[in-house]
Amino acid sequence: MRLLVINPNISTGVTALIEAEARRSAEPGTVLTMRTAPLGVAYIETRFEALIGAWATAQIAAADHAGHDAVIVAAFGDPGVAALREALPVPVIGLTEAALASSMLLGRRVSIIAISQRIQAWYREVVRELGQLDRLASIRALDQTLGRIDRIGDEHADALLALCERAVHEDGAEVLILAGAPLAGLARQIEARLPVPVVDGVGSAVRQASALVRQRPAPAVAGGGAPPPLKANAGLPDAIVRLLADGAERVAQARLQQASPQTPRNNE
Amino acid sequence: MRLLVINPNISTGVTALIEAEARRSAEPGTVLTMRTAPLGVAYIETRFEALIGAWATAQIAAADHAGHDAVIVAAFGDPGVAALREALPVPVIGLTEAALASSMLLGRRVSIIAISQRIQAWYREVVRELGQLDRLASIRALDQTLGRIDRIGDEHADALLALCERAVHEDGAEVLILAGAPLAGLARQIEARLPVPVVDGVGSAVRQASALVRQRPAPAVAGGGAPPPLKANAGLPDAIVRLLADGAERVAQARLQQASPQTPRNNE
Amino acid sequence: MRLLVINPNISTGVTALIEAEARRSAEPGTVLTMRTAPLGVAYIETRFEALIGAWATAQIAAADHAGHDAVIVAAFGDPGVAALREALPVPVIGLTEAALASSMLLGRRVSIIAISQRIQAWYREVVRELGQLDRLASIRALDQTLGRIDRIGDEHADALLALCERAVHEDGAEVLILAGAPLAGLARQIEARLPVPVVDGVGSAVRQASALVRQRPAPAVAGGGAPPPLKANAGLPDAIVRLLADGAERVAQARLQQASPQTPRNNE
Amino acid sequence: MRLLVINPNISTGVTALIEAEARRSAEPGTVLTMRTAPLGVAYIETRFEALIGAWATAQIAAADHAGHDAVIVAAFGDPGVAALREALPVPVIGLTEAALASSMLLGRRVSIIAISQRIQAWYREVVRELGQLDRLASIRALDQTLGRIDRIGDEHADALLALCERAVHEDGAEVLILAGAPLAGLARQIEARLPVPVVDGVGSAVRQASALVRQRPAPAVAGGGAPPPLKANAGLPDAIVRLLADGAERVAQARLQQASPQTPRNNE
Amino acid sequence: MRLLVINPNISTGVTALIEAEARRSAEPGTVLTMRTAPLGVAYIETRFEALIGAWATAQIAAADHAGHDAVIVAAFGDPGVAALREALPVPVIGLTEAALASSMLLGRRVSIIAISQRIQAWYREVVRELGQLDRLASIRALDQTLGRIDRIGDEHADALLALCERAVHEDGAEVLILAGAPLAGLARQIEARLPVPVVDGVGSAVRQASALVRQRPAPAVAGGGAPPPLKANAGLPDAIVRLLADGAERVAQARLQQASPQTPRNNE
Amino acid sequence: MRLLVINPNISTGVTALIEAEARRSAEPGTVLTMRTAPLGVAYIETRFEALIGAWATAQIAAADHAGHDAVIVAAFGDPGVAALREALPVPVIGLTEAALASSMLLGRRVSIIAISQRIQAWYREVVRELGQLDRLASIRALDQTLGRIDRIGDEHADALLALCERAVHEDGAEVLILAGAPLAGLARQIEARLPVPVVDGVGSAVRQASALVRQRPAPAVAGGGAPPPLKANAGLPDAIVRLLADGAERVAQARLQQASPQTPRNNE
Repeated sequence: MRLLVINPNISTGVTALIEAEARRSAEPGTVLTMRTAPLGVAYIETRFEALIGAWATAQIAAADHAGHDAVIVAAFGDPGVAALREALPVPVIGLTEAALASSMLLGRRVSIIAISQRIQAWYREVVRELGQLDRLASIRALDQTLGRIDRIGDEHADALLALCERAVHEDGAEVLILAGAPLAGLARQIEARLPVPVVDGVGSAVRQASALVRQRPAPAVAGGGAPPPLKANAGLPDAIVRLLADGAERVAQARLQQASPQTPRNNE
Repeated sequence: MRLLVINPNISTGVTALIEAEARRSAEPGTVLTMRTAPLGVAYIETRFEALIGAWATAQIAAADHAGHDAVIVAAFGDPGVAALREALPVPVIGLTEAALASSMLLGRRVSIIAISQRIQAWYREVVRELGQLDRLASIRALDQTLGRIDRIGDEHADALLALCERAVHEDGAEVLILAGAPLAGLARQIEARLPVPVVDGVGSAVRQASALVRQRPAPAVAGGGAPPPLKANAGLPDAIVRLLADGAERVAQARLQQASPQTPRNNE
Repeated sequence: MRLLVINPNISTGVTALIEAEARRSAEPGTVLTMRTAPLGVAYIETRFEALIGAWATAQIAAADHAGHDAVIVAAFGDPGVAALREALPVPVIGLTEAALASSMLLGRRVSIIAISQRIQAWYREVVRELGQLDRLASIRALDQTLGRIDRIGDEHADALLALCERAVHEDGAEVLILAGAPLAGLARQIEARLPVPVVDGVGSAVRQASALVRQRPAPAVAGGGAPPPLKANAGLPDAIVRLLADGAERVAQARLQQASPQTPRNNE
Repeated sequence: MRLLVINPNISTGVTALIEAEARRSAEPGTVLTMRTAPLGVAYIETRFEALIGAWATAQIAAADHAGHDAVIVAAFGDPGVAALREALPVPVIGLTEAALASSMLLGRRVSIIAISQRIQAWYREVVRELGQLDRLASIRALDQTLGRIDRIGDEHADALLALCERAVHEDGAEVLILAGAPLAGLARQIEARLPVPVVDGVGSAVRQASALVRQRPAPAVAGGGAPPPLKANAGLPDAIVRLLADGAERVAQARLQQASPQTPRNNE
Repeated sequence: MRLLVINPNISTGVTALIEAEARRSAEPGTVLTMRTAPLGVAYIETRFEALIGAWATAQIAAADHAGHDAVIVAAFGDPGVAALREALPVPVIGLTEAALASSMLLGRRVSIIAISQRIQAWYREVVRELGQLDRLASIRALDQTLGRIDRIGDEHADALLALCERAVHEDGAEVLILAGAPLAGLARQIEARLPVPVVDGVGSAVRQASALVRQRPAPAVAGGGAPPPLKANAGLPDAIVRLLADGAERVAQARLQQASPQTPRNNE
Repeated sequence: MRLLVINPNISTGVTALIEAEARRSAEPGTVLTMRTAPLGVAYIETRFEALIGAWATAQIAAADHAGHDAVIVAAFGDPGVAALREALPVPVIGLTEAALASSMLLGRRVSIIAISQRIQAWYREVVRELGQLDRLASIRALDQTLGRIDRIGDEHADALLALCERAVHEDGAEVLILAGAPLAGLARQIEARLPVPVVDGVGSAVRQASALVRQRPAPAVAGGGAPPPLKANAGLPDAIVRLLADGAERVAQARLQQASPQTPRNNE
């Protein structure tokens, strides 16, 4: 199984954290291709930074997805994921949706523990877009000056633990998500001290990717999740132009086969 | 990995369907223990039948979970799952929640294809209880007299395909769930003829169970998902009495360790 | 008017509290048949205990409903009520839904005052299942070690009053529900000290039962609330087998009459 | 028990229908005071007509509530009910909220059958304001020219029955409400031909009023449902000026008693 | 452009505040006709007072709207606005809906800052009726004895600023609404000290009225927002009788034109 | 007043339509700067195309906003608007949010009329993100092959009118939105044939921009809508780097002034 793991941010230190937890979480034999965004910011806290991260991710995914069984967008908030899912022929998995999916099997109401006050508004919107606001007990976040972005988990473990406790005892969380790629791996270290199950975004994404790759779902060729219809474009990177053309071709093929339904669509 | 798979109904034919799809979906080396409810009905369509199925499932799970890494409740509608999750020390997975979790990574809005008109009211409630109504595009169901419960998929495949098409083109489904253990395995057979990704309840549950077993989340010992507090009981099967006692003991141990936090809780 | 009042728990002391308040609330001439669950726990705080209570209640209701005009399930949380409503030929009333129905005529937003922290997650889910989350201002609960379950109202009246005050002044409650059979009768004692109307679960259930018995609604014979369709069953208590058979017969009769519509269905 | 029953419209024929069904639904010994609005329209279908009906109702209720145990506002849509509930010292019951409360004990999802297409937008808003949209399966309405407003039930019974059937079989209704005072009494006549329980607005309101009068809830003296705070007014009918003064006095008395809490508030 | 601005309350001091801010906010050349309710209370905090204010407003609007391009109902809570919109041939704008509309372009989540604790329940309901509860971060209100109603902004500016700060930092507000006609003009004075954009109800209403007058939308003549259908009425003020007749005539004309569609409806 | 109007797509024909309607809707003296995306697709129907359009829009807005009083993103779906609002010092207005804001003052429930089936899933998500799903009666869309994108309004006017009628009569729309920049100006042409008020996205955006420019709201410097916090970035276009720096500077200045609060923040 080959996974393309994209850090939508420019911080190679965080890419290293992501890779370490991804390796710990992956099935034996999984090959990881790691990519760090060549353009963007150190980490995403806002909608504007997410817009940038989404564009960076789209370019990498378009250029490098070939030969991979799935693509993981390794930032909480899932920049570009819903968009890329339409366009790519393989599963695309975001950290937020993977963590929320995993958490659904561990408890009803979930709290998200985050690294900064500023990030909460955006996280809440993402949960809402994913249709999971009904399950959200709370978002709780650090209110401290952060040092190195790839050391937050180490330097603020106690404060993060305290937030977890409050989420369980004051907000009614039955399961916790430690949110954000900069916290990758922390859940593993502190779960023994937590009173409820805890989910790591990177770990969840890798495990959900494994599950999807075993399932091998066919990509959508109709409806609201199909590739964009063929139309004029201009000024786009070659890889994105190819992605658009490939998607339109996939839809066209499916329509042809529908006319002669004896041939199954994904008979490979 | 050892999974206890419980059919909450009395139909051994459906248990065979479940087992076949579970084996196809399981990682190599997975050991399946199959159980069929000794009391109950042929298949669950209503809240009252779900009440019966929940009780049957609870007895089996209490008696037989030891030695397994996770328990799968193999009926769509997840009878007893939220209750058992509080009580058991290992992950408990229902077909509905597993299918909804998997579907979240494949598309925004989901339709459920069901085997009978009568079953729809109950399914809708279950989706709602799981906090996923926001994502539900529709439930569509057969409106035909069913023959053998373990042959529905074979005998009604075309009608089910037609429901799938309508869900995509009229209801806006971006992903489909073929619901109900009696349809186990059908998704695999017809997915090539469907225009959007499709999820099988049994297959999803097995794959999600694998992912959880690899994660090994600690059971809740506080909050709304912890085991029931210790209190008087009477008239219960021995296995359930033991389950209640074990859960209370787990909570008590956690409180002791919290007082002396140097010892991690799940230090195995 | 004859009411079957079932305590889904094993605590005879609570059954006595229920009976006392039910008699105070009943119209003159009402005959109460009291039943205490022979299997289960002292009181329900969790989903798992509710599963047990639902099964105990179903057995009693199936065995003993004959000759009664309505059945009251006398535990807040309404274990088994939605299920039994499908199956029984007479109205079935739960404490939560009765209290919420009564409260709707007394104010817009309602708070529930509960006996333990642990019980809140389950109560919230029940309110949500009943489609009343939109009206819920808050759930507030005691955070103290409880002594005898049938003495909570007496021993913690002041703490409960304080919770009521906070619900009104901090949460916006316009009406209060004192929740749980162990508090039966307390509303009557403290309402003069409360600034908003207060509803007692047992009292509401008895009064709503009276209203329904006067209305004599025909049981559903089609749609999502009709009895379970006829199908194979096994291993069930005789009373439940009879209940399933009676329900199916009721549906069959209704279909026959629909074919010859000159004969009204419930012409008794 | 003495009930003040106000028809917020000018149609005495409808008042007669209301009175007839109210008498059939009332407990023996209930005294009904019937009032017809001296100003307004024949029946309310719109928000603007509801504004007029609310004002007419407020004047009657202010002038005539003394000596009654409860007030019923006998128009579906409940014009003025939430407002009057703040101001009056006795329970105020609207047809919509009473029907919705009763329906909650008979099934999960409810459909409303209405007399005109135009009325649906307003009814939907009222259900929404009452926090019951979550339970609403559908509103279905006649699409025919109405003759005499007090003969709709007689003249359109078959069309109304057909709407009921569609609500059950297409919309998932588990219980029905025949909406609007002009249909008072119809439920009683056609329920034997309906496959699910049916609720009459007037009948429900009378039965719920009985239940509330037996409960004798104290009026709110604090929070969002208390009487309006004392302040300058001008140009109002005497009865409304008195109502405002009485309410403010009630709040003031309660505050005094709170300062000396040994005296219970409603010590009658 | 001519705007009819109605203060639904009797306080001429507040009318002066409204007029001052309306003039500051209006485009050059705008003519304002100011009206103060001849009947009602000093300011609206409750549903009952809103019922009175709605009736007063309806009478003024019916009598005086002729010759104006739009009508502004200048009380937060929008008493009578939805009703009057059906009946009047020109746009009707409420302070709440105008402020919420403007706020939508300035940020996602909005907090409302209000003048009294008591007013919050009603405001929340109004936001909910307008379908904007999803965007509401919080309502925060003064908890102090108010002096002169037209001096609140001056006397409590610091307390109101503190509420604004808490709404941003504790509740997640991205935009603020200073609610209530008694605060008209305050936003302009304190916005430089606030960390997020702030909206004034009167200012928003005037600006939104300008925008609508430039658009000149045709009034609804079908659907849920059309004028009330023609029917018998009695006891109403002449101006309201004329308004009802005019509305019915507008609908009738539209139906005639629909039969001969070559003539556009609003060809003036 | 100077408005920067950005077409996020590459179709200059659509830019011409936008400009024409913008000029018709603008106050006298408004200066429009029109921009067409140099990279992207002909028109946006999908999330992936919206991702591209958002990036193109961000680059133009960053480079060219100086000297303008507001920025209009002239594509329905508002690509990049929420993100740009954080970053830019002047108001940013999207077509969808402007149309929804205007529609709120014209009626309760709104339907959106769209140009293609494929576009509906994305539009629904955008309405949901804006917190307006509660008001959405329906989205109805053409189901025809489109010719030139800038001629849709002309070539399909009758089909669009028919969709409008169905939205009013079947879906309960009280106000309509003709969605999509390719339909700019159509509302003006057909409104005389529609039974309810209709809103044009471009026209609404221009009028709402006027209103905001008159209000001159200060940009957020704290909370969930403030500019992104200062942090490392790389690989970004110069204009975006400057935008990030300017935003961070704005926040820093505001904090300084907060420390010395005698100086108002926006004292220009």
